[in-house]
Amino acid sequence: MLFPLVINFFMAVICYIITVRLIPRLKDKFIKANLFGIDMSKTTSDKIPESLGVVTGCTFLITMFLFIPVPFGNSLLYKANFPQDEFVKYIAALLSICCMLFLGFADDVLDVPWRHKLLLPTIASLPLLMVYYVSFNSTTVIVPKPLRDMFGTSVDIGLFYYLYMGMLAVFCTNAINILAGVNGLEVGQSVVIGLSIIIFNVIELFGNLSKAHQFSLYFMMPYVAASLALLKHNWYPSSVFVGDTFCYFSGMTFAVVAILGRFNKTALLFFIPQVFNFLYSAPQLFKLVPCPRHRLPKFNSKTDRMECSLVVFKYSEINVLGKLCLTIFRKLKLIQWKEKSDTIITNNFTLINLVLLYTGPLHEAKLTSYLIAIQVACSVLALIIRYPFAWIFYDV
Amino acid sequence: MLFPLVINFFMAVICYIITVRLIPRLKDKFIKANLFGIDMSKTTSDKIPESLGVVTGCTFLITMFLFIPVPFGNSLLYKANFPQDEFVKYIAALLSICCMLFLGFADDVLDVPWRHKLLLPTIASLPLLMVYYVSFNSTTVIVPKPLRDMFGTSVDIGLFYYLYMGMLAVFCTNAINILAGVNGLEVGQSVVIGLSIIIFNVIELFGNLSKAHQFSLYFMMPYVAASLALLKHNWYPSSVFVGDTFCYFSGMTFAVVAILGRFNKTALLFFIPQVFNFLYSAPQLFKLVPCPRHRLPKFNSKTDRMECSLVVFKYSEINVLGKLCLTIFRKLKLIQWKEKSDTIITNNFTLINLVLLYTGPLHEAKLTSYLIAIQVACSVLALIIRYPFAWIFYDV
Repeated sequence: MLFPLVINFFMAVICYIITVRLIPRLKDKFIKANLFGIDMSKTTSDKIPESLGVVTGCTFLITMFLFIPVPFGNSLLYKANFPQDEFVKYIAALLSICCMLFLGFADDVLDVPWRHKLLLPTIASLPLLMVYYVSFNSTTVIVPKPLRDMFGTSVDIGLFYYLYMGMLAVFCTNAINILAGVNGLEVGQSVVIGLSIIIFNVIELFGNLSKAHQFSLYFMMPYVAASLALLKHNWYPSSVFVGDTFCYFSGMTFAVVAILGRFNKTALLFFIPQVFNFLYSAPQLFKLVPCPRHRLPKFNSKTDRMECSLVVFKYSEINVLGKLCLTIFRKLKLIQWKEKSDTIITNNFTLINLVLLYTGPLHEAKLTSYLIAIQVACSVLALIIRYPFAWIFYDV
Repeated sequence: MLFPLVINFFMAVICYIITVRLIPRLKDKFIKANLFGIDMSKTTSDKIPESLGVVTGCTFLITMFLFIPVPFGNSLLYKANFPQDEFVKYIAALLSICCMLFLGFADDVLDVPWRHKLLLPTIASLPLLMVYYVSFNSTTVIVPKPLRDMFGTSVDIGLFYYLYMGMLAVFCTNAINILAGVNGLEVGQSVVIGLSIIIFNVIELFGNLSKAHQFSLYFMMPYVAASLALLKHNWYPSSVFVGDTFCYFSGMTFAVVAILGRFNKTALLFFIPQVFNFLYSAPQLFKLVPCPRHRLPKFNSKTDRMECSLVVFKYSEINVLGKLCLTIFRKLKLIQWKEKSDTIITNNFTLINLVLLYTGPLHEAKLTSYLIAIQVACSVLALIIRYPFAWIFYDV
């Protein structure tokens, strides 16, 4: 069991070395192809190449293509008992990831309309769900002890389970995308999530679902390696941007290992900051409260610090639902609030602004570090929920 | 057996209808993304959107994703005997196609160096070859009757068989790409090849390898439908260009059905014009004879006709191998030849120029039609070689 993992680890290291060298070499090609952005939180206005996540995605895919034969070692030579059902999982996983990487890149280049961003991951996850169906088709959820009088020990939620998994793919691909805007944050949070999954897989490696967690590790180690290489160039001050490509690619990779590694409920625990950020952003995303085109924190060039970005609107123009959200957020002290007769000034509802609200203006690198620290803290919390806490509600 | 084919046919029709409507709507997005070209064979200099093959590829992939469950109908409901080995072929085929579509698009956007164009299809075909290995691993070639005294009835060529299949993928993806340059030619030839494969599959549908040919039809019908939709917009005068994306996508789709449909030798027969064009181009591609950046035929705006494009060089600067090629081509009357002391004027070595050499200047639409007619004639020839002719050399 350990041999393929060791090979995988070394391939991941090679993948890191190649990716970290390849990225700076390809920068000019991206700028030449009109794929670049200006960093709004810097005093310079250099062209920063955009969508470099595509390089990470490619080196990851190539590593995985070359790795596939390894775990099948002996059964490849004596083909009588070749485990087709295991093999198909690898292929389907790579199909979904490749599809999403492609769509992410197409989105960066062509600017896909917003509604397609929800449709496309759903389609890309179809092969995955079909493989889940033919391989496991377990749609049973264990009920927590306090609710067992009402529902029994376990409930088969059938089709809803597939709906949940499809939505997981959509959520993962978009959640990372909306918690973004400061140098290194997209890749930083993804690396933390990846490492958390690796730790979880290693803990479970000798448990019941050993094979499933091994499968997840095969994907996660090269993924984290390729992403670390990108992080090196994307960290403050960014010499490359990662693009939607990277967010889509990462999200789908997480969804794939969560679904085929059979820990799709635990996986969501590693997304606590993303879930919070999504819920917190929801009033603006769904236009209950005015949403400016950019909600990034504001760069103050005099102090070289990032500040809360603000939104100004008339209170009388907000509908009932919007007013309810505002009241709740104010009660929970999640937003600042200045009113002058009918005019309201508050911060944009993102986790980044929330951090700035509590810390005051921060240097960009420090801001990213704080946000990554929150991600790490949440992963520790997730593992606490998953282990000591779960023993209270479930028989382990 | 017929039911999934009927469903597939109707899905192909729907795929055509959607693609044909989608392409004109997305044109502006491509131009905005800097993906456009100027048609050098027109008097106007409008921006023509480039790489629209990516739309065709996407609608094809989505159609296939939605189709996958159909052929498994009953075994999906009673999962006891689910044919994992059949299922994995679909997934691996789509993985290779999706990979190639992605690489083609990346090439269009980023301009991948030439040597990668040979490396990437090889990598993209790895999952395919692995599936071939675990599913069939038949590497035996039937020996033609006249040679049986020397080699026996069949020869197991082992690894070389895989090498051949890998090279088939590289050849298919590049062969269509180099027989290009006049409106509608890339898609036109691909549609003819696709239809030829469909005819061949239908002929073989009731033979020994019925399942394999059915598999091929499932891919070819939506492929031809999506490509026809593209052809409608790419035909003279082109309102969209197809890009390397389309050539890569097509080449890989053909390689996939040829390999997993188990007719990888017959498939090559449908590429006669491409093989000829490749051999004819080889002296220029390998720089034995000077190769200008563009070898397209020349547009004469006064007559609105296409003319042979010429190349001028000093005979004394050509090496021995180059001189040998030139002599052979002259003997076979494949090139025109004007010499003035040491200076040579001849045409560029492409099938398109060769046609113009024999017909004289032609209107662009007529030139494409002639080239497509050659493709059709070669497909008829291919079927003659495959059937009446094969009976002489093989026991059928």
